[in-house]
This record gives sequence, C-alpha cells and structure tokens, in this order.
Amino acid sequence: MSVAAMQAIAVRREESDPELIEKPRPEPDSGEALVRMLRVGVDGTDHEVLAHGPEEFPGNDDHVVLGHEAVGVVEAPNDTDFEVGDVVVPTVRRPPASGTNEYFERGEPDMAPEGCHVECGISGAHGFMSEYVTVPAAFLLSIPRRLAEVGLFVEPISIIEKAIEHAYASRSAFDWSPQRALVLGNGALGLVTLAILRQEFEETYCLGRRDRPDPTIDVIEALDSTYVDSRETPVDEIPAVHGGMDIVLEATGFAKHPFQAIEALAPNGVGALVGIPEPWEFEVDGGRLHSELVVHNKGLVGTVNSNPRHFRRATRTLRGLPEWLFEDLVTTVVGPENVGPAFVDDDQQIKAVVEFSTP
Amino acid sequence: MSVAAMQAIAVRREESDPELIEKPRPEPDSGEALVRMLRVGVDGTDHEVLAHGPEEFPGNDDHVVLGHEAVGVVEAPNDTDFEVGDVVVPTVRRPPASGTNEYFERGEPDMAPEGCHVECGISGAHGFMSEYVTVPAAFLLSIPRRLAEVGLFVEPISIIEKAIEHAYASRSAFDWSPQRALVLGNGALGLVTLAILRQEFEETYCLGRRDRPDPTIDVIEALDSTYVDSRETPVDEIPAVHGGMDIVLEATGFAKHPFQAIEALAPNGVGALVGIPEPWEFEVDGGRLHSELVVHNKGLVGTVNSNPRHFRRATRTLRGLPEWLFEDLVTTVVGPENVGPAFVDDDQQIKAVVEFSTP
Repeated sequence: MSVAAMQAIAVRREESDPELIEKPRPEPDSGEALVRMLRVGVDGTDHEVLAHGPEEFPGNDDHVVLGHEAVGVVEAPNDTDFEVGDVVVPTVRRPPASGTNEYFERGEPDMAPEGCHVECGISGAHGFMSEYVTVPAAFLLSIPRRLAEVGLFVEPISIIEKAIEHAYASRSAFDWSPQRALVLGNGALGLVTLAILRQEFEETYCLGRRDRPDPTIDVIEALDSTYVDSRETPVDEIPAVHGGMDIVLEATGFAKHPFQAIEALAPNGVGALVGIPEPWEFEVDGGRLHSELVVHNKGLVGTVNSNPRHFRRATRTLRGLPEWLFEDLVTTVVGPENVGPAFVDDDQQIKAVVEFSTP
Repeated sequence: MSVAAMQAIAVRREESDPELIEKPRPEPDSGEALVRMLRVGVDGTDHEVLAHGPEEFPGNDDHVVLGHEAVGVVEAPNDTDFEVGDVVVPTVRRPPASGTNEYFERGEPDMAPEGCHVECGISGAHGFMSEYVTVPAAFLLSIPRRLAEVGLFVEPISIIEKAIEHAYASRSAFDWSPQRALVLGNGALGLVTLAILRQEFEETYCLGRRDRPDPTIDVIEALDSTYVDSRETPVDEIPAVHGGMDIVLEATGFAKHPFQAIEALAPNGVGALVGIPEPWEFEVDGGRLHSELVVHNKGLVGTVNSNPRHFRRATRTLRGLPEWLFEDLVTTVVGPENVGPAFVDDDQQIKAVVEFSTP
C-alpha cells in the first residue's frame, strides 16, 4: 500500500531556516478529521522556533513542521461531527504523550503547566504548515465559510480574547468603566489587539518606534487611534501626555514593558501581558512600582495560549472587524514552494501567510 | 455655653512623637452618631504618620489625631439608625472637602484616587485615637457586642478581605483550586492574614526573619502553619523547598517582595500586595519575571484600603477566628495617659492597643 506524500514547511534540528519537505500525508485516527490546509500565518513565535528550535522536537523526528495560526477545510470528517467542506481552525495545545489530564478535560488546556501539554508547531508537536493535518474533533472549530481567507487570525485573536478576559476578571471586584486603552507593540498582534480594543474603548493608543511613512502607523490611524512614538514619549511618561491608561496590553515581549506599564496605568487599571521575553537584568524603582500597584489598586496579569472558548469568541470578534484591516495587515501571501518572503521580518512586513490551497 | 473637653493622642506638625492632647469633644452633625471610643490599634501606618507626618494635616490644624483601627460604642445615635450602646467600627475614608463623589456614592471609596478622599488618622482627617468621635452613619458598622474587645481588628481584616477578593477575582476566568498560601511578613497584619488563609488553604506558610524563641513564630505554628526564615530560604527559592504557592500575600511593604513573589508562585497563581514601600531602585531579571507572568498565567494585584462591604465581611471572618489568636496578638494595652509602650516597635510587640474605655 503506497502512502500519499504531501508538502510541509519545517525546520530541522540544528537548522534555522524554513525548509520545504515531503512527508507522508497523515491518516486520521478515530475521532480525528482530515483537514486540507488553506492558509497558515507566520508570527513571532515561528521566528523564535526558527532561531532557537522548538523546546522539544515531536517524538524522534529530526524536524518540526512550523505554524500554529491556521485555517483549513475538512476533507474527510472521519467519525467526527464535521462535514466535508467545513471551514475549520485548529487550536494549538494537545495532551502530552503521557495522555490527557484535568486541564484538557475541563476545556482549559491554556492553563496547563509544563509537562501537561505540547504545542503544535511550537514544542513537542508538529504545526499546521503542511498540505494536510489530522485534528481531534475537540481541537477543531468550525468558522463561517466567508471567513476562510482571514480565518488564520482566529488563533492570534483568541490569545487577545484570553488576555482581555483575564484583565477584566482582575477588575471584576469593583465598578470599572475603562475608557483609555494602550497597546504596546505595532506588530500584527498589536494592530489586531488595537482593532479589538477600539470596538469598546473611547480612546485607543498604540506604541511603536517607527518613522512615518510606515504601514503600521497608517493602520493605527485608520483605526482612529493615536500613534505613540516611544522615542518621543516613553511608556512611563504617557499619563502626563495622554492621561493614564485603564488597560495596557503588552504584545511585543519587550522585557521592560510590564514595569513601565505600571506607571502608564490610571488608578485601578490593569496591564495584560502576552509577549514572552528572554532573561534580561535591569534596574527598576521597585519601591515605587510596588507602591503604585498598591496605592492605586493596579494589577498585572500574564496569559499564555487560549482555549476553545476563546477561539469561539475570537471567531465572533473576527466577524465584527472591518475587511480592510486584514487586507492591510496581510503584506505577503506565498505558496509552499516559495516561503522565503514570508519569513522576512522587516518594517514593510506586517503579516505573512503561506497559502497551501483555496476553498 | 461651655464645650466639653476630651483626651486624644495626636502628633503635631514637625513632631514625631505621639502626644496626649485635649480637644473639644465633637458635636455630631445631622446624620452622624457620637461614638465613645473603646480601643484603637496601632499599626505600621501610624508609625509612618509619626515618622513623616500625614500627607496632609486636617484643615488648618497643627496636629492630626492618630489611629484608624478602632472600635467604639454609640453614645448618642443622633438621627441615625444606631442605638445607644451599639458596638461599632468606623471605616477609614471620607469624602474630601470638595464633597462626595461617584466612588463614595457607589460604596467604593477604597477605589477613589487621590483628591477624591481623605483618610482618618492618615491624611487630611483626624483619626480615632480620642475619647469621642463623630461618624456619619454610612461610615459606621455595628458589630456583635461580644466582639467589643477585638473589634479593632475589623479594619485590618477588611484590608485583607479586599486583597483576597481582588486576588480571587483575578483568577475567576478559569477553574482555580488553590491549596498553598504564603504570607510575606509576620507582623500583626501578616499573622491575621495567615489565620484567615488557614481557614481555606490546605497548606499555609509565613515568611519572617527572626530567631526562635519568638512570639510570632509561636503564633505561626499554633496556626498549624510553616514558618519560613527568609535568611535560610529566600522567597524565590520557596518553590524548590516547599512547592509553588497558589497565592502570595505581601503584608510588609518590603519593596522586593512583589518581584520575588512572581518566582514563588505556582503556575496560575497570584500575588496580592497590601504593603506600601518607599522608592528603592534595584536590579531585577525583568525578562525572566515578565516571561514567568506570561508563560505561567500569573498575576499581581495591589489593593489599598477597603470599603463597607469588606468591613462587613471582616466582621464575619473575625467571628470565626479563634479567641486565643487575639490574646496572643495583643501584646500591649495602655490608657491614653501612658501610650509610650504602645508605640514601641520591637520583636516582642505584635499588636499594641490604646484603650479609652470599656463597654
């Protein structure tokens, strides 16, 4: 019996460039759907995996398939409730080799600590940058067919849905009416975050350090938001210039941001963190930051990953965001034979996408 | 018409020692009860007010009456709903001279930023360390008569009720089943916090840096909790020795504690801060702390003061705490003519109380 082959974009052990490889097309197990991939986004985590390798390669493989922001179409439902042609988005975390656990059982794999999960395309499991993937039904979500082109944004939006959910939860013990939101970072994730917050907040700000003309500043202003150049207005001086922020969402992984965010917050405000920096020692006025947190009832919450509930909410959010936004954000679309341009990380690139097929 | 005089313990401008003074006995306005003071506790904030003065003296007075942890008895209800003989506890924040505001109107004066409140005995208003005080009905709480002796603990317990409430709120977006709690600080507030957390947590720990024999270590162990000597086990090494903590409650105002607490937390844990340090610059591994917050879904929440709801909850909590605890905590009881021993701050002192009268 011959096994069909397929194309995938992977990085091999000891390598740091994405490579087009051939792999056997996966055979779905019981409870898994076979998904034909449409589009997969490239984000900062993919660049991390390329630069440093995944924390763990899947099984004994000499490579990991990249990509965790994906949208596909059901090719074979197998014995799941999906139908052929359903447009679907896979979630990212899977149980570890040792089997499932309480976090997965209650639908909160995002709260599972190390050892209790693997992450597709990130650590311990292959990602979605291949012509086909098999996905257990519990980790696959139907989205409206008309979102097929932008469905790869469901995953990054779900990350922000979780961060905002935890931030609001942290303010739920009192009457909180936030009005001013600041996003730290003008990458694709920062701009999507800005668009989400713009729907609820009267005033929205986005921090970057770019000169005009710049495509991200154009998006910020098209979102009726204020661009804050950190070279002119450092984060901790933002309250003096623009007023204190009720929420600050850190979407870059710049190590100093959480500490600066404490100062940027208005009384009773909260900083939400989703970026992941490397170790970096530096000096802070720890007494002042500690006092600011207490005297002004401030909070900081870090969140990682997202669960199926956040994916569902992200789908609703995605439906409400303007089409032009994604046209502006997606700066590169390439096929698997020519992924080089999708992994260029410069000021003209906002979001790059690898397209395997069309609906 | 002669105005009756009363005794009070105050600190004058430019002075730093408590002084017994005579003041006119206050006349209640409409909506205010006249309260005869029973007992007033001394805490770290009183020592701060002595050392540095209040942020603001009340009106044009040359002094501020100390004390904000108080229990008294209603002497004249005036036109309030209280009755003569009711045992009562006053809350601490009052509207500023400019009048009331939204925070007070919705029962959340604890969330009012600067300029929107004064604090009795702390800034802009006289405290409760006097034979009589007048208290608007909205800022006065009846407690059971049998709690008259320990009622001064309602205020500090209310501070912890708020901190715990905000900490739990910050974890309310997921299924959180905390088991291990760590209190940073073995002062009176730390020990009361430990007793509160002991009611809910399977394992409780309290950090100090004292040699045995020590009265606070005795209380920690009588609470069936583990004493952690920070000289042997620094906060950030606690997970390796005792396991990660689901909640860390900082009750000292030691500036480095919030940063160390991030490392002491288990995944999905939260640090709650109530102490207020002075500015202090020091180095942190900000990259590692930022990453810890994100990768392990950790949070930090600061809280200050407390509102009438927290006072009511504190009264219920106080009723559930063992009597021996307060016998062990109250190391000094003095009358207003001899307050010196109540302001001694050494290792034998846990909680000092000034007693003005008995029920």
